Amino acid sequence: MSVIYDRVALIGLGLIAGSMAHAMRDGGLAREIVGYARSAETRDIAREIGLCDEVFDSAAEAVKGADLVVLAVPVGAMGDVAAEIAPHLKPGATVTDVGSVKQSVIDAVAPHLPEGVHFIPGHPLAGTEHSGPRSGFAGLFRNRWWLLTPLPDSDEAAVQRLTGLIVAIGAKSDRMDPAHHDLVLAVTSHAPHLIAYTMVGVADHLRRVTDEEVIQYSAAGFRDFTRIAASDPTMWRDVFLHNKEATLDILGRFTEELFMLQRAIRMGDGQQLFDYFTRTRAIRRGIIEAGQDTNAPDFGRSGETKAAKE
Amino acid sequence: MSVIYDRVALIGLGLIAGSMAHAMRDGGLAREIVGYARSAETRDIAREIGLCDEVFDSAAEAVKGADLVVLAVPVGAMGDVAAEIAPHLKPGATVTDVGSVKQSVIDAVAPHLPEGVHFIPGHPLAGTEHSGPRSGFAGLFRNRWWLLTPLPDSDEAAVQRLTGLIVAIGAKSDRMDPAHHDLVLAVTSHAPHLIAYTMVGVADHLRRVTDEEVIQYSAAGFRDFTRIAASDPTMWRDVFLHNKEATLDILGRFTEELFMLQRAIRMGDGQQLFDYFTRTRAIRRGIIEAGQDTNAPDFGRSGETKAAKE
Repeated sequence: MSVIYDRVALIGLGLIAGSMAHAMRDGGLAREIVGYARSAETRDIAREIGLCDEVFDSAAEAVKGADLVVLAVPVGAMGDVAAEIAPHLKPGATVTDVGSVKQSVIDAVAPHLPEGVHFIPGHPLAGTEHSGPRSGFAGLFRNRWWLLTPLPDSDEAAVQRLTGLIVAIGAKSDRMDPAHHDLVLAVTSHAPHLIAYTMVGVADHLRRVTDEEVIQYSAAGFRDFTRIAASDPTMWRDVFLHNKEATLDILGRFTEELFMLQRAIRMGDGQQLFDYFTRTRAIRRGIIEAGQDTNAPDFGRSGETKAAKE
Repeated sequence: MSVIYDRVALIGLGLIAGSMAHAMRDGGLAREIVGYARSAETRDIAREIGLCDEVFDSAAEAVKGADLVVLAVPVGAMGDVAAEIAPHLKPGATVTDVGSVKQSVIDAVAPHLPEGVHFIPGHPLAGTEHSGPRSGFAGLFRNRWWLLTPLPDSDEAAVQRLTGLIVAIGAKSDRMDPAHHDLVLAVTSHAPHLIAYTMVGVADHLRRVTDEEVIQYSAAGFRDFTRIAASDPTMWRDVFLHNKEATLDILGRFTEELFMLQRAIRMGDGQQLFDYFTRTRAIRRGIIEAGQDTNAPDFGRSGETKAAKE
């Protein structure tokens, strides 16, 4: 591997930025990695574990002289951060972000950035239910998609260079229109997360009634939901507020379908249920064929298997 | 390990029965394991892979002389099977089932069974999204709950003996009232499955519009849903039809909560979203503390990790 950026500044030091730091260091992809986080506690932990070469007390200081600036803060905080760092950016620097929503980040960030700075919005499709500076690991992006949504006037050489970093980190890179990205992610990620949060909320309600049994006997389906619903609350609040229209559209479709199945249950229409469930199997096959998952029979059992191996 | 039952008859040779066969053989828990499946193809595969010591062409033949009969067919088929085997059951034999719903199975099975036969309904909280005679494996039940819902007049010695088998297989055993079981499972398993099916159905609709992108870029949340939604259609059709009231109750609560969150998104009420998402994190913690999962940061990545290790 060879150095792709001399100096990388990570703004925000959570799961994604931390994993990038580990991956870039492992691959020797940056000569220097510096960082900033809003919380003093996060900065202290980052210093303690040596997450970056240097952790600054302000975003403005952190971005000075950086060839690549990565905005890894909740989507709702992107605009303010951009306004703060804009006067301190090095001419010719690339600014990217890792937000789960793209159009609203573009609207919030782009107006602040000076000419001669390349803004290339991005979104790595990777994560765990953990957050904070200790949660990152180098393998997080391995074989995952990292979508870029360049602007019409984005510099092609700068996009290529950033793509080089993404690929060197182990991810697969692709480009997409920002609005289209937001629709695709609404159905594959944002709506499913809200639904998981909701189902866990319902269980929370019943848990008080049934004296911990709901937790004690939680089967595989529900365990997967709780994993999703344990994700960072600030990040997800911002995702929903900033991808409002697409999320509400998908949720509308979802409740229509759910009511149809609910009615089939009430009416005892087994054929309709059977046909529906048979159709959904095909999607699963498609996902395996598209290489985003494997067919290994470990549904809900991964943690245990892992623990058993350790 | 020592032999617990001389002769075990498995009626139905899918994931659960197959896994029981492997586990009982590994542990030397039964002197003889015989089986029956309705489909000739399943019987042929079971013979080919030596799943049982003998596979019969009728359930009546299979249960002859068996000390333990395990009904491992979809919930909706339990009654017919019970009627068919009843005249052929050995006096003093134990009949159990592995259905995901208990009250309706009791209503369907109990009236057919002769006096002197011990009926002890059961439900192992274990599964994968795979089905059929090839899908079983001995470790499926390891550290999982296996709930028994004995009837008021169930013979205690017979219940203890069955519990001995369950524990020897590696599962944790507990007893529960049938109706209460059905409510707990509605919230932890049945409603989540229907929701996962629905979300995958919505994506299927959009998939045609977005030319495979929904599959190509499916993020972790959605991948987990597709895994759930790939489960056996017949089994799940029967679960919903036979746990109708509890499932509809939970779905009603679910849509109320979802509409509240949907409204918060529409109104831009970030505080309400944040508070809700913070609450759901506590449930996740509860599940980890209850020992049903681990805290390992491998959300949606298990298959990959496994593949990489192989």
